[in-house]
Amino acid sequence: MYYIGIDLGGTKILGALFNEEGDIVKKSKIKTRAAEGKEHVFSQITKVIDELVDEIDIKEVKAIGAGVPGIIDGKNGIVVFTPNLPWENYELTKEVTEKYGIPMYIGNDVNVGIMGERMYGAAKGLENVIGIFVGTGIGGGIIIEGKLYEGKTGAAGEIGHITIDPKGPICGCGARGCLEAIASKTAILKYIKAQLLRGRKSTLSEDINEESTILKSGHLKKSYENNDELSLEVIEKMCEDIGIGTSSLMNILNPEAIVFGGGIIESLGEILLPKIKKTARQYAMPKIFENCEFKIAELGDDAGIMGALALAQVGNEL
Amino acid sequence: MYYIGIDLGGTKILGALFNEEGDIVKKSKIKTRAAEGKEHVFSQITKVIDELVDEIDIKEVKAIGAGVPGIIDGKNGIVVFTPNLPWENYELTKEVTEKYGIPMYIGNDVNVGIMGERMYGAAKGLENVIGIFVGTGIGGGIIIEGKLYEGKTGAAGEIGHITIDPKGPICGCGARGCLEAIASKTAILKYIKAQLLRGRKSTLSEDINEESTILKSGHLKKSYENNDELSLEVIEKMCEDIGIGTSSLMNILNPEAIVFGGGIIESLGEILLPKIKKTARQYAMPKIFENCEFKIAELGDDAGIMGALALAQVGNEL
Repeated sequence: MYYIGIDLGGTKILGALFNEEGDIVKKSKIKTRAAEGKEHVFSQITKVIDELVDEIDIKEVKAIGAGVPGIIDGKNGIVVFTPNLPWENYELTKEVTEKYGIPMYIGNDVNVGIMGERMYGAAKGLENVIGIFVGTGIGGGIIIEGKLYEGKTGAAGEIGHITIDPKGPICGCGARGCLEAIASKTAILKYIKAQLLRGRKSTLSEDINEESTILKSGHLKKSYENNDELSLEVIEKMCEDIGIGTSSLMNILNPEAIVFGGGIIESLGEILLPKIKKTARQYAMPKIFENCEFKIAELGDDAGIMGALALAQVGNEL
Repeated sequence: MYYIGIDLGGTKILGALFNEEGDIVKKSKIKTRAAEGKEHVFSQITKVIDELVDEIDIKEVKAIGAGVPGIIDGKNGIVVFTPNLPWENYELTKEVTEKYGIPMYIGNDVNVGIMGERMYGAAKGLENVIGIFVGTGIGGGIIIEGKLYEGKTGAAGEIGHITIDPKGPICGCGARGCLEAIASKTAILKYIKAQLLRGRKSTLSEDINEESTILKSGHLKKSYENNDELSLEVIEKMCEDIGIGTSSLMNILNPEAIVFGGGIIESLGEILLPKIKKTARQYAMPKIFENCEFKIAELGDDAGIMGALALAQVGNEL
């Protein structure tokens, strides 16, 4: 028996065929081409599935799991809303199951990634875990009693939208001072560009200019390691803000562990984690802080497909 | 068959005998006299239980539930830490069960109160609910899939310790700018006293002076209804801060409903709730906001014993 795990992104679809032990038997990757419309994205998914099963009998696939960016109604298998795909209230699992006769389970991509870490990565075997993923935005996921917690409409875990500074910058969500609007790579890049524009000297200017649209973790790391003043400042501030958001989460959920992931954590985690922890210690309740582990995500780019595998396995047990 | 529900407070113990329909058959109230020590508090609890069952056979009591202020390990029936009772890592349920031969289930008092609202009050039948209780402090509780969520060490739901202003006033927990340090009755009283001290004119000065230690909701209401400028300001600010904390909670947990309780909400709820909601609308994700009801707690002083009944019933089913 096999499982299929799919990480459906706005730009690419990554799929894997797993055996029952959870080993990857085969991988497949394809461009999403979201701009070509609803049916096209579906046909891209089927291409990935078809390629994964081309050497086995499809009846041997027990279940398919998939992480999808956006608001997902996992119970009913519906993609409610997604900013990067041409779907709204789309019955994805129904379509896939009708075509292949295999049950499919879906969840929000970040949630699914956290589930991957919970089943096969940094949070293996833990029951109450929060995942915080810092990237272009800041996403998160909550695991309660070993299961993804999705809330009333599948939107739980919007950790990037904890208010850190009610008078802070406007966030993409329309609110002010969300963690994402202050401490995501996008927010930090904006700050760095503003500082450079104001004539501040920084080795970051070697890699970043007015036209830059992405902050590369490697660039920040390099400047930080060269004791560049602006980089030091930016990292201190980012860790402080993430630490404050983290402690609010801890006080609310009293988790066993928090798993930090995303590109910037993967490359700078050893520097960032102690700093985040230092601030969290100042704001979290002592008894809660003492009982919570801070961990770095382990699965990297495979978190999505590994979580999708977990979803397929767990969904299949329900 | 009967159940017993106990609301164990720092100053008084309230108990009720319930029939299987959940109707109160008998009530009993006694002073806690916490200062007299560990054994004494236990003997006060037994006095309440003895009085409740004096006309029935104790074997007819199926289970006892109790809400206890502090950090509670519900799974093991242990009072881990409580600021107002002389107990630490105290095996309360073991003691009670050894004496009476009846299973006992305990939980944090605020959590239990929310459970009461969930079973018999404002949140009846809802699956994912957050309770926010505004009083001397700000407490809260989280219900997930119809059950109390207690976290790793029973400390979940510390909603009063969400950070609202990282540079704000020092909180009793040692952190800065917690919701409780800004928007509890204690925090508001402090602000009012400071304003009066600075010579600000307010009808609140009729009821509040330098020696006041408690802010009575009735006094604030009276002044607010007289369009007292300071009272208007204090209420606007409190609702804004509670609204910001509420929206962070909503973005994290995507609840079906939020139940607001505590003395100040009970007397001023009709004024406060629309204001809290207005701010929450500005900070919560739109899809989450649209799907969340704002409710006022219904059970008042009985929330504790009703929740304890629920705990006894649910515990008994496990």
